Amino acid sequence: METLENIVYDDLHVGDTASFTRSLTEDELVLFAAVSGDVNPVHLDADFAADSMFKERIAHGMWSGSLISAALATVMPGPGTIYLEQSLSFKRPVKLDDTLTVKLSVVSKERKNRVTIACDVVNQHDQTVVSGEAKVIAPTERLSLPRPRLPRITIESFDSEQHED
Amino acid sequence: METLENIVYDDLHVGDTASFTRSLTEDELVLFAAVSGDVNPVHLDADFAADSMFKERIAHGMWSGSLISAALATVMPGPGTIYLEQSLSFKRPVKLDDTLTVKLSVVSKERKNRVTIACDVVNQHDQTVVSGEAKVIAPTERLSLPRPRLPRITIESFDSEQHED
Repeated sequence: METLENIVYDDLHVGDTASFTRSLTEDELVLFAAVSGDVNPVHLDADFAADSMFKERIAHGMWSGSLISAALATVMPGPGTIYLEQSLSFKRPVKLDDTLTVKLSVVSKERKNRVTIACDVVNQHDQTVVSGEAKVIAPTERLSLPRPRLPRITIESFDSEQHED
Repeated sequence: METLENIVYDDLHVGDTASFTRSLTEDELVLFAAVSGDVNPVHLDADFAADSMFKERIAHGMWSGSLISAALATVMPGPGTIYLEQSLSFKRPVKLDDTLTVKLSVVSKERKNRVTIACDVVNQHDQTVVSGEAKVIAPTERLSLPRPRLPRITIESFDSEQHED
């Protein structure tokens, strides 16, 4: 059974790294639009996006941000982490079938279990798409949890009939 | 038909405000976990969350961040906006049935159509849950677009059988 494990404050060291990888499919475009309410057609409408400066549909910038938060919450430090702050600088668009890797690196440890972590999100060409810095309270209690299973999510077929004319 | 309209750089003024409101249901917890990969049980498992410091399931912090990005992309400045930077400070947990309002306020206008926007997310008790600042390139071309419709998304019933024992 897959587990989620954390790294407690005392076991984190400056320079420690971790990573987390996900790919962008049409599902992410639809689900992120649904969960955030950001239905901008540059993410959803292939025809509209073809005429945009990006020439094709792109990911919501904050989707890359959500991958950073997932990396912090599930990999390093992992479960029990309290999220305090995040900065994000959006560098480059993310396109369908791009594979993003969140690279985390411990920058400093402070009082009261605070940790500052550099966050870089790179695509499959090793180009940075988002960079930023997180401040968290690292957990102090070791946890090893069964990884929750998600209910099945079904998205109706994504046709080109995106808007009424 | 509902439309998405934008506010171009020349029509934005320091002090202009806009807002965007959404409520947290179990759907957002599941969809955000699916789209980000953050399956931390504090967001998904009612029993686990009951024993946590929060006493119940809470929203992913970055879900509030995604509402800010939705407000920028669909309300002010709206379609055509290029997202450059976002800072986020997570102040308070968000619980099921909380209604969040993103409040945007133009802080300054700079060269090359850059705009800095203060972003506060408050709950139904007017308590700030997230605050931060966005830097964007505002659109220069007026747009009025049909609001894209999303395909239907179905989530299997969310039972308490969240992990294998």
